[in-house]
Amino acid sequence: MPRTGRRPGPGGTREKILAAARSRFGQEGYDGTTIRGIAAGAGVDPALVPHYFGSKEGVFLAAVEFPVDPAEFVPRLLAPGIDGLGERLVIFFLETWDSPSGASLLGLIRSVVSSELAADLMREFVTREVLGRLAEAIKLDHPQLRAGLVATQLVGLAMLRYVIKVESLSSASRGELARWIGPTIQHYLTDPAVTASRRSTARRRR
Amino acid sequence: MPRTGRRPGPGGTREKILAAARSRFGQEGYDGTTIRGIAAGAGVDPALVPHYFGSKEGVFLAAVEFPVDPAEFVPRLLAPGIDGLGERLVIFFLETWDSPSGASLLGLIRSVVSSELAADLMREFVTREVLGRLAEAIKLDHPQLRAGLVATQLVGLAMLRYVIKVESLSSASRGELARWIGPTIQHYLTDPAVTASRRSTARRRR
Repeated sequence: MPRTGRRPGPGGTREKILAAARSRFGQEGYDGTTIRGIAAGAGVDPALVPHYFGSKEGVFLAAVEFPVDPAEFVPRLLAPGIDGLGERLVIFFLETWDSPSGASLLGLIRSVVSSELAADLMREFVTREVLGRLAEAIKLDHPQLRAGLVATQLVGLAMLRYVIKVESLSSASRGELARWIGPTIQHYLTDPAVTASRRSTARRRR
Repeated sequence: MPRTGRRPGPGGTREKILAAARSRFGQEGYDGTTIRGIAAGAGVDPALVPHYFGSKEGVFLAAVEFPVDPAEFVPRLLAPGIDGLGERLVIFFLETWDSPSGASLLGLIRSVVSSELAADLMREFVTREVLGRLAEAIKLDHPQLRAGLVATQLVGLAMLRYVIKVESLSSASRGELARWIGPTIQHYLTDPAVTASRRSTARRRR
């Protein structure tokens, strides 16, 4: 990528990187996008991307306005141990949706449902940065499957409470929902019975 | 799965009724729409609507291409009793998605997520015709809440398996998913502990 003599002003560089990142992530997916590629698209030195955003994950979070950082929240929720993790996850998830950031989560769900490209992108990001971290931390069998089952329950909760707005769920408090749904999450994360059928019966790998 | 409606009548009466129904349901919601209103919109005798579609629910199912009829499948799944209902619900849900009808379910999810009007309409329909029937049949405390919790788990399963397509869920067989998720559904439908917090706080069973 040829460099021009003019460098973007300090205020414009960040925006140029974000615009290039949106374009690259949209075309190449999460896994296929590199910091170098984003920098080339923005016409800036590759060192500026980590300077502004820390990492590829950081650029992504800013580009799609993802309101929370898995590198921060996954270790924090896990810090007190596995006990009660299900309820803590539900409370954290609902607090994020109920905060001003909830609007950007709703926007993300809309993109994912209306565009296969957005769904691919979000799947790669969530698989690697959210489910992957969670899976690694719980150190149990079939971590990706356990993390995927957790995701079904949380995404469904968001759909019914914030998108479809079924009264019995939209009127419940976060504490009530954590008591009802937390044990399901805990079960998916930790119960040996969940994955027993993968060990004893015909397996499918792919 | 039998589709509601009879063969097209002379002059496209059936199509006129469907077009009027889509317009009315979209404007007035499910609860606010009447057979008389649909007939007026189509410019036909009100007796023709039940003649072609049986009921308001029947016109709705045909108008939005809802692939299954809750008046048929809810009693059928409940017929063998409450035991194993969770797994039967999961299998039936996945069979519907995996059939050619899955495409219209994906279309419905897209409408619901992109349009508040569609979300309102689907909420009214699902609350009354699906959750309501299920709630009535299980004869337990807090039936709407239980049915709502079941819906979170099933809708989330569809989102992760068919929309986002996370590998651990999209590669699993229906039987595996029923074994993993069926017990959650059964728990939401029948376990007294689920709703214990509504009667006396701070109780936990699991």
